Amino acid sequence: MRMVDLIEKKRDGQTLTKEEIDFIISGYTEESIPDYQMSALLMAIFYQDMTDEEITSLTMAMANSGEIIDLSSIEGIKVDKHSTGGVGDTTTLVLAPLVASVGVPVAKMSGRGLGFTGGTLDKFESIPGFKIELSEQEFIDIVNKSKVAVIGQSGNLAPADKKLYALRDVTATVDSIPLIASSIMSKKIAAGADAIVLDVTTGEGAFMKNIEDAKRLAKTMVRIGHLAGRQTMAVISDMSEPLGEAIGNSLEIVEAIDTLKGQGPEDLTEMCYVLGSQMVVLAKQASSLEDARKMLEEALASGKALEKFREMVIDQGGDVTVIDQPEKLLTAKYEIALPAKMSGYVEELVANEIGIAAMLLGAGRKTKEDAIDHAVGIKLHKKIGDKVAAGESLLTIYANEENVENVKELLYDNIKISDQFTEPTLIHAIITE
Amino acid sequence: MRMVDLIEKKRDGQTLTKEEIDFIISGYTEESIPDYQMSALLMAIFYQDMTDEEITSLTMAMANSGEIIDLSSIEGIKVDKHSTGGVGDTTTLVLAPLVASVGVPVAKMSGRGLGFTGGTLDKFESIPGFKIELSEQEFIDIVNKSKVAVIGQSGNLAPADKKLYALRDVTATVDSIPLIASSIMSKKIAAGADAIVLDVTTGEGAFMKNIEDAKRLAKTMVRIGHLAGRQTMAVISDMSEPLGEAIGNSLEIVEAIDTLKGQGPEDLTEMCYVLGSQMVVLAKQASSLEDARKMLEEALASGKALEKFREMVIDQGGDVTVIDQPEKLLTAKYEIALPAKMSGYVEELVANEIGIAAMLLGAGRKTKEDAIDHAVGIKLHKKIGDKVAAGESLLTIYANEENVENVKELLYDNIKISDQFTEPTLIHAIITE
Repeated sequence: MRMVDLIEKKRDGQTLTKEEIDFIISGYTEESIPDYQMSALLMAIFYQDMTDEEITSLTMAMANSGEIIDLSSIEGIKVDKHSTGGVGDTTTLVLAPLVASVGVPVAKMSGRGLGFTGGTLDKFESIPGFKIELSEQEFIDIVNKSKVAVIGQSGNLAPADKKLYALRDVTATVDSIPLIASSIMSKKIAAGADAIVLDVTTGEGAFMKNIEDAKRLAKTMVRIGHLAGRQTMAVISDMSEPLGEAIGNSLEIVEAIDTLKGQGPEDLTEMCYVLGSQMVVLAKQASSLEDARKMLEEALASGKALEKFREMVIDQGGDVTVIDQPEKLLTAKYEIALPAKMSGYVEELVANEIGIAAMLLGAGRKTKEDAIDHAVGIKLHKKIGDKVAAGESLLTIYANEENVENVKELLYDNIKISDQFTEPTLIHAIITE
Repeated sequence: MRMVDLIEKKRDGQTLTKEEIDFIISGYTEESIPDYQMSALLMAIFYQDMTDEEITSLTMAMANSGEIIDLSSIEGIKVDKHSTGGVGDTTTLVLAPLVASVGVPVAKMSGRGLGFTGGTLDKFESIPGFKIELSEQEFIDIVNKSKVAVIGQSGNLAPADKKLYALRDVTATVDSIPLIASSIMSKKIAAGADAIVLDVTTGEGAFMKNIEDAKRLAKTMVRIGHLAGRQTMAVISDMSEPLGEAIGNSLEIVEAIDTLKGQGPEDLTEMCYVLGSQMVVLAKQASSLEDARKMLEEALASGKALEKFREMVIDQGGDVTVIDQPEKLLTAKYEIALPAKMSGYVEELVANEIGIAAMLLGAGRKTKEDAIDHAVGIKLHKKIGDKVAAGESLLTIYANEENVENVKELLYDNIKISDQFTEPTLIHAIITE
């Protein structure tokens, strides 16, 4: 088998076999296939697309290129959840204890934030003492005991995907549905998931700028999940504006605690119910999405979910007092209001730009090497559709420097107030097959 | 300027500017742009094509990536001729002295053969003593004195093209009209041509398998020649069967001498008149193709063309006695006939396969490093449309080994005899603008 012939085959719109895809991925991982052949193939895939069978073979080949986490010693169906990225996306912080509290084992591997997108690990690390580095055995033991643990992703998970992603990033082959789908699914499968819930975000703050592309991506991932033997469901959610009100690491932990107390923002709470219901059904803890939702509402109302969060923080060595006194986490030196310049309804809150504003304050990383400031961020007081009076505060900036004029300017540029009421959308579609 | 943005631009079907193409080619030549980005761009070009302006910018950028031969001290308009490759293509051997004999300066840089395609340098080297390595000054002096010289191509001609070609070869991006056109034209321009005549071959023995593709390539090259300020014409010629009767280095020299004596194969003679007329017109030695052809017919009939060949061989140190005794060149140990297995008309003589047969005898190279045997080859006695009786010899194999069963088998497999007469085609179209 010669790589050049396989490039030509895909170039001419033919279908690659499982054996051919295995040859490509193992050759690329072992460096017998050079980057310059792989990038030509990636560009051919960009134009020619792949069948579900091809994407499944690619997904499995990438998952098998490194360590496959064995979670079989954890009782029950392990359901993983993945978001294609958002701004102020606090769902994992809420979902992990929430679904664990109704009996779904959550053995979650998470990543760090980059650019305008925050990372779950960074958020958990806002809790003093919270340890995200556990051995595989500690991790499994905690999940068996408490049903929930969140750790950092192993370095050797799907190395072929890591290598491919770096190549795609510099060869203009990132925006390809089969390549995005296989990249996400390979990591989930390597991380040991039995079933997968996907949150495919769409809008300015997301990777998929329009709903049609988001739907195609979601449907592709659900189909390849099934072909790979993993029950998979997806939600197409809106990321035109940030989810919830908090953007920033400590701020989002506080928001998660509020939500677990039943006092969180409406959109975030709803999103947690929708995604959580899918997780509960896939874990076979409920037979319908409706039943699952009822269980979750009950767990929240009864305080069971909050107790699970407390247990989780204790298990992972974190300072549990923040749950009763979350204000302890709000240590930014300055709290600066952003008054509305005119009266009307909020029409736009451009999510990625608000994410960038938070990053500029220090809440996110421009490059992988940057340090982050857990205390800083933004708390929205108004969201799309909200009425606002001139002079009223649109949001609070939590900063560790006094001069935040550039951030203010960026925020003003990306918050549009109009005479007309705009109805916000939270969920565009639910994809179950 | 970032390469990844330029890849994305071309990927999305936009047009690259001259500045962008210059950035790409100089970056690639200096190795600040890596192969993996270039191959992604090449694949994007494969799908998105390029405008004439883009191809012209690419051509000039590649020509300017290395040495540009300065032929300005040669009097007159220097016309170069290029064939996209053929089997038994003896035209350059005839054309160089033929057009020089009517006053067109021929300062020709040629290459060696690879695969089933022969190389002009290898053919000239069949003449004992013939030197193809001359200094630039010797080369120019000879052309000024005698109007004709043929030398090996400088190593530093269009190095960007050399690097790109090697990359295309392993990334399935060879078959792209803009990339083929710019590759050919960049070398011709770097070699100092004022005007260019192109022989675009089509058929089984050629790079372009069908006439439509050949026409597109020819028209593209003619247009970019004009945009680059070089008068350019092209002929679409047939390479279903080998041109002329000889395939092999010494055999083709003998055939060239025969043709210059007015005793050559009809198709080869005609091809030389057609291409030669274009060269004469572009060199402004005649005002119409008809007038040019008359001049060439006269030069051949009067012996002027043959005398020019004699002068050329003397100038380049070759054994001039072969012109009067060409049989001296036929030193192969064995001459083996290939009798027809049935009577009828020759319907097919698959050019590339017959070229491979000659290569197997030792007339060509499988890899660049192979040595070649100048004496061996094939002489056809029958061509498409010829009547043949069972047992009559189709061709003679000139070999230096006795057992040529594999070659015979390959030849039989690729010579088809049928009841029906097939009319051969020599020239499909003439493209002048």
